[in-house]
Amino acid sequence: MDYLQAWDKYKDLTYDQLPDAVIKVANQCILDWFGCAFAGSGEPLAGILRQVFGHRSGSCSVVGSELQLDAQTAALLNGASGHALDYDDTGARTHCHSTAPVFPAALAIAEEIGMTGKQLITAFVVGVEVEGRVARAMGRDHYARGWHTTATYGAFGATASVAHLLGLEKTQYAIAMGLAASHASGVKANFGTMTKPYHPGHAAESGITCAKLAAAGYTANPDAVMGNQGFIGAASTADDATERLASAADDWMILGTLFKYHAACHLTHSAIESVLALRTDLEVDRLSALTITVNPALLDVCGIPDPKTGLEGKFSLRGTASLALNGIDTANPETFVDKVIGSVEVQKLIEKISVETDTKLSNFQSKIVWIDDQQRAQEAFKDLSEPVSDYDEQGKKLEQKFSSLCAYSGHDGQNLLAKIQGLAEADIVSF
Amino acid sequence: MDYLQAWDKYKDLTYDQLPDAVIKVANQCILDWFGCAFAGSGEPLAGILRQVFGHRSGSCSVVGSELQLDAQTAALLNGASGHALDYDDTGARTHCHSTAPVFPAALAIAEEIGMTGKQLITAFVVGVEVEGRVARAMGRDHYARGWHTTATYGAFGATASVAHLLGLEKTQYAIAMGLAASHASGVKANFGTMTKPYHPGHAAESGITCAKLAAAGYTANPDAVMGNQGFIGAASTADDATERLASAADDWMILGTLFKYHAACHLTHSAIESVLALRTDLEVDRLSALTITVNPALLDVCGIPDPKTGLEGKFSLRGTASLALNGIDTANPETFVDKVIGSVEVQKLIEKISVETDTKLSNFQSKIVWIDDQQRAQEAFKDLSEPVSDYDEQGKKLEQKFSSLCAYSGHDGQNLLAKIQGLAEADIVSF
Repeated sequence: MDYLQAWDKYKDLTYDQLPDAVIKVANQCILDWFGCAFAGSGEPLAGILRQVFGHRSGSCSVVGSELQLDAQTAALLNGASGHALDYDDTGARTHCHSTAPVFPAALAIAEEIGMTGKQLITAFVVGVEVEGRVARAMGRDHYARGWHTTATYGAFGATASVAHLLGLEKTQYAIAMGLAASHASGVKANFGTMTKPYHPGHAAESGITCAKLAAAGYTANPDAVMGNQGFIGAASTADDATERLASAADDWMILGTLFKYHAACHLTHSAIESVLALRTDLEVDRLSALTITVNPALLDVCGIPDPKTGLEGKFSLRGTASLALNGIDTANPETFVDKVIGSVEVQKLIEKISVETDTKLSNFQSKIVWIDDQQRAQEAFKDLSEPVSDYDEQGKKLEQKFSSLCAYSGHDGQNLLAKIQGLAEADIVSF
Repeated sequence: MDYLQAWDKYKDLTYDQLPDAVIKVANQCILDWFGCAFAGSGEPLAGILRQVFGHRSGSCSVVGSELQLDAQTAALLNGASGHALDYDDTGARTHCHSTAPVFPAALAIAEEIGMTGKQLITAFVVGVEVEGRVARAMGRDHYARGWHTTATYGAFGATASVAHLLGLEKTQYAIAMGLAASHASGVKANFGTMTKPYHPGHAAESGITCAKLAAAGYTANPDAVMGNQGFIGAASTADDATERLASAADDWMILGTLFKYHAACHLTHSAIESVLALRTDLEVDRLSALTITVNPALLDVCGIPDPKTGLEGKFSLRGTASLALNGIDTANPETFVDKVIGSVEVQKLIEKISVETDTKLSNFQSKIVWIDDQQRAQEAFKDLSEPVSDYDEQGKKLEQKFSSLCAYSGHDGQNLLAKIQGLAEADIVSF
């Protein structure tokens, strides 16, 4: 089932038809996104975007501010805020940060038109499902070539989500996706700069433009994603995706969502959690050496050996493990500032940590060996590649994370939590 | 000289430093662009864009309407209008429609800030020069992979042009170009739809966003165009461009501009002109057969064998040659409507025309053999690949074209011509 065939399945999908697990995870994605966006809206990049785009008045909320802007612009600003801390969810099945580009687009249109909470949640799910189908149709070398999939797949997911809210027929939907093929953009060279969080914002903005233009009668090639001279062939070495698409035909992409509980690169998390587990039984004062073994691909992503700044700390296996050894809260975004990463205690333990590689490990797996001052070794292994199955337990952890992020950014967490958790009952979406 | 080194040369460039030929051609590009944009603003696609984006108020003109919008949105709408008829200029050195994405971006910012006409013209030239440097740095397979270079190179040209008007220092300029690396997009699968003219509009809009964000302190990787995981590696098989860049270091890209005098695909023009030349001495009534020989690559671009609609006629060597044989004005956009292309006289002569191929011919060359009813053959050869050197003669032809386009679209050509030709004397740009 490709993204065009998917419209036959999703076009008339309603909230009542969603499986319970999908509803639970979708609501968790939305809660987690809002927490990240409230906190991210205080970052300097969000302020610059408000300064450059704040004149475009409209009826759509800009999270963390009093501004009301037109739909495209609100989606751009909210999309950037939601990814500003790099603390939002990751899709094991969509191969990108699934929620970051899709939800802000759907939110803005739901507010602009005055849709119900159930319509918004359903359209968000549809966007993620289509996003995952484009991901599976893409040639395998797309990410390695330099494309940031949250930006590229995100533009299609956002378009589909808005197309669902606007009720586009299949022909118009295909044209909207053809327009998105001429909007999808965003390169990994911009990782580590304000332009990385800009990517999902730009994708969300594009999704609204593409769906609105198609609804108004604009034309594009309905086959401009997968067809001749289309986006997939231009941005990857297109290969036969039939098997990849068929094998996932009945899957819900959104059930592959992985959430972050540490405010650092997702690929540092399994090592952090192993260190925390060992630390409950062992004395850090008696640590002689700690070895982290990971897939070698991680060295290009979070392999900064000697982090000094907060941002470097987020992308450093040694830095994050030292924080965990020190008992410093890695869930708190305020941990990732220059003062903490550069502190004597963090720097001192970094010296005891070494990183080794093993191609047999997956990206979300790590192995830790802890050697104490008697040369006794303790090992730990952690695999975070699979979504959890206990959604209620996950929900509790995410509520706690949401409250912390609201406290961090000076928002009223309790009232916001109630409002977001009541979204499905809202007659008209308004934030 | 790559696009970064180019800033050392162009950052402080002033109108008075421009060679006479550059000033002449730049003004011709601008006049020709306005004619195309006035005429294009009456196309349905321009109406849809005004409908979807017309709510954004600002101080920038939308050509062919009374709307005043913010800079990005005006650039988007004007960029699309300028390319709507596919009648604007082509850059033999920039490998794209050079003016279409760059000028609308510069125009909007010049109006918003209140710059002089000379500042606008200079910034337009700088944009085209940078556009050509990005084109030369790009891997050779970029266009063949499916990318529309007017969209992709155009985003960088527009960014540089606006950066010049905003007076960005090299560091900020490099960041603006890094942001543009995450905006450049547009695929050839959308040729033949309203999304093709959308491409230069989108590039112009992106250029303003990128330069404004960089000016406001937003960050991006200054090496995100040519560097590791950057746009060139993502969107082409990057090869060594050192020689291509060095050999053009002292060239003015804008002097490679080719103008269109027929409202059809540029690659049909040499055949049209050969037919017109032969027709002055030969009787069409006695034509037995006409053979057009072109490079085989043209068959994918303008090889529609049996055109019935106006749009098909634009991309048909047989159709355009039949128009020329019939003495129907190929300079007039109204020629390319279903009624004319489908008429008995055009269809009848199409039957006498055949197309052959020869790899030795370049894309802008063609050979014509005219056989009369006595089986006597006359030949003609035309090469339109080189820009003309008689700029004054070119200027006269472009004035005539401008007047025709204004008449076609119901604009006051005489007053507009005077205003545009007086642009260099304007203290504050305002259209």
